[in-house]
Amino acid sequence: MLSKTQSKYIRSLTHQKFRNEHKVFIAEGTKIAEEWLRSDARIQKIVATQLWVDGSLHLIALHPEAELHIADEAELLTVSSLSTPNQVLLVVYKKDVPELKEMEEWCLALDNIQDPGNMGTIIRIADWFGINHIVCGEGCVDVYNPKVVQSSMGGHLRVNLYETDLEAFLSNSKIPVIAATLDGQNIYTTAKPTAGILVIGNESKGVSAKVLAQATHKVMIPRLGGAESLNAGVSAGIICALLLQP
Amino acid sequence: MLSKTQSKYIRSLTHQKFRNEHKVFIAEGTKIAEEWLRSDARIQKIVATQLWVDGSLHLIALHPEAELHIADEAELLTVSSLSTPNQVLLVVYKKDVPELKEMEEWCLALDNIQDPGNMGTIIRIADWFGINHIVCGEGCVDVYNPKVVQSSMGGHLRVNLYETDLEAFLSNSKIPVIAATLDGQNIYTTAKPTAGILVIGNESKGVSAKVLAQATHKVMIPRLGGAESLNAGVSAGIICALLLQP
Repeated sequence: MLSKTQSKYIRSLTHQKFRNEHKVFIAEGTKIAEEWLRSDARIQKIVATQLWVDGSLHLIALHPEAELHIADEAELLTVSSLSTPNQVLLVVYKKDVPELKEMEEWCLALDNIQDPGNMGTIIRIADWFGINHIVCGEGCVDVYNPKVVQSSMGGHLRVNLYETDLEAFLSNSKIPVIAATLDGQNIYTTAKPTAGILVIGNESKGVSAKVLAQATHKVMIPRLGGAESLNAGVSAGIICALLLQP
Repeated sequence: MLSKTQSKYIRSLTHQKFRNEHKVFIAEGTKIAEEWLRSDARIQKIVATQLWVDGSLHLIALHPEAELHIADEAELLTVSSLSTPNQVLLVVYKKDVPELKEMEEWCLALDNIQDPGNMGTIIRIADWFGINHIVCGEGCVDVYNPKVVQSSMGGHLRVNLYETDLEAFLSNSKIPVIAATLDGQNIYTTAKPTAGILVIGNESKGVSAKVLAQATHKVMIPRLGGAESLNAGVSAGIICALLLQP
């Protein structure tokens, strides 16, 4: 059973303000929870059904620092950000972000990515392609939004996520700054650098003018059909697959 | 003002059963609505704010067959499948799907794609790459689910969407059947056929055994980092970009 105070606290964490204040975030679902519990993340609370607890004692044992609350599915649903019933919800302490240094390896820079699903998908793409750093400009959705945590599938554990003034950061780059734009150079025939910062822009407006002004290269995926554009996450995936081609 | 009966009817269309019964579906949002109104689709109802109507008389004039209902944002929200306020909602008649013939050009086959966002994203990818046909096996989310229509960004207008027994369909194919699997051949070094059926599997389980048995080729995107898998939509996009490379 969760107390009223506990329920209220957990529900408050759907808001960025309270995640920032308490330096924690929510990770939900059996698969995601398992990834976080197997990591060295510091866990504040585990809220789970008796069924999940019975099958997960080995995972719970890894985190003696965590408070354990047994709840039924109905109760979990009242504190969940997901629309489907769930077995387990974690409250996880944010880890300290390392200092943002000058990049020497491939990284992503996100300019005003607003959809949590896209943000999570892009973190998952970086994680798949071994890109260790994502730099988010102001205006991006909070990377600790529950839907971002959900859709990155544990990517948060392996990819460093920074928030900074993108214009200033890019202006200091010594490696190529490659922006994805609809009027860029054909990605298939572009020379592939050994390192670079790939800039992905807003879902409907693309890369903003002031960020674009810092790009040393512009690339686009040639369109063969009738669609006006590709989804931001899909574009990021395709460009990574083509630029980081082994 | 929408009557109670009208509101109830529109809300019922969030369920596949009623979409099938009435042979209609919902398309929402200014951008999506504009795409549908500019097409030759037959529109049953336009439900919109006075503001949208005032600025869209040229679009409304294209569809004398449609009933027009003026509603305020609060009223629109009660019949909407979206969580954000909206200006316009259309009820659109489904068009007849052409007969599914043997494929001679690139097409996609979807095995148990369940997430509406993924389904819409994949239709949008096909639309971008000029792939004219998507064949959905049983178990896929309804392609007329409001979130699918939302995320395909008008792709429904240009891509033919079929529902069939995938196993039987693939077993008759005269062009290569290429399944995306984690144990497939490296996509970068795979020979690229001039036509084929690309099979994308379920978000967590991948391509099912009986569908996989019909594949003539298996491909995978090499992993360079720590993620367990890529999102189904992103995988589809990357494989299309690599196989249909101009």
